[in-house]
Amino acid sequence: MGNQKSAAVGLQRTVAENLKERRLRLGLSQEEFAEVCGYHRTYIGSIERAERNITLSTLDALARALNVPPNELLRENNG
Amino acid sequence: MGNQKSAAVGLQRTVAENLKERRLRLGLSQEEFAEVCGYHRTYIGSIERAERNITLSTLDALARALNVPPNELLRENNG
Repeated sequence: MGNQKSAAVGLQRTVAENLKERRLRLGLSQEEFAEVCGYHRTYIGSIERAERNITLSTLDALARALNVPPNELLRENNG
Repeated sequence: MGNQKSAAVGLQRTVAENLKERRLRLGLSQEEFAEVCGYHRTYIGSIERAERNITLSTLDALARALNVPPNELLRENNG
């Protein structure tokens, strides 16, 4: 996989992990969370499996639904 | 403009400001920076005018070219 491509998938994985962690902290299922941000459950599932190269507007909608700043979802989890 | 749309444009503006500031800090023109990250100069210009709803892979490529973590480009400038 090209360097640039694998790096981008790395960022998709970072968003996936942060999204899932924050959603579970709020005690929401994928379905409940999807309803909050106006997306379909299967779309949320695909983002959490790092399958989606989402855009800024999607990142913004997810962050709003989680009540966190958008850059929180890009925070590297070195822990 | 719908709330969600204006919020997303807000995030595009944040990326635009951070990108331009970081690029100028490196002393690079849009053309030189475009060459570093493999995009066309006009595309960099449109991102810096907050006209583009870029994806994670584009955000990642820009951040790599600037040698900053991707979430730096989403940092709100309250200064």
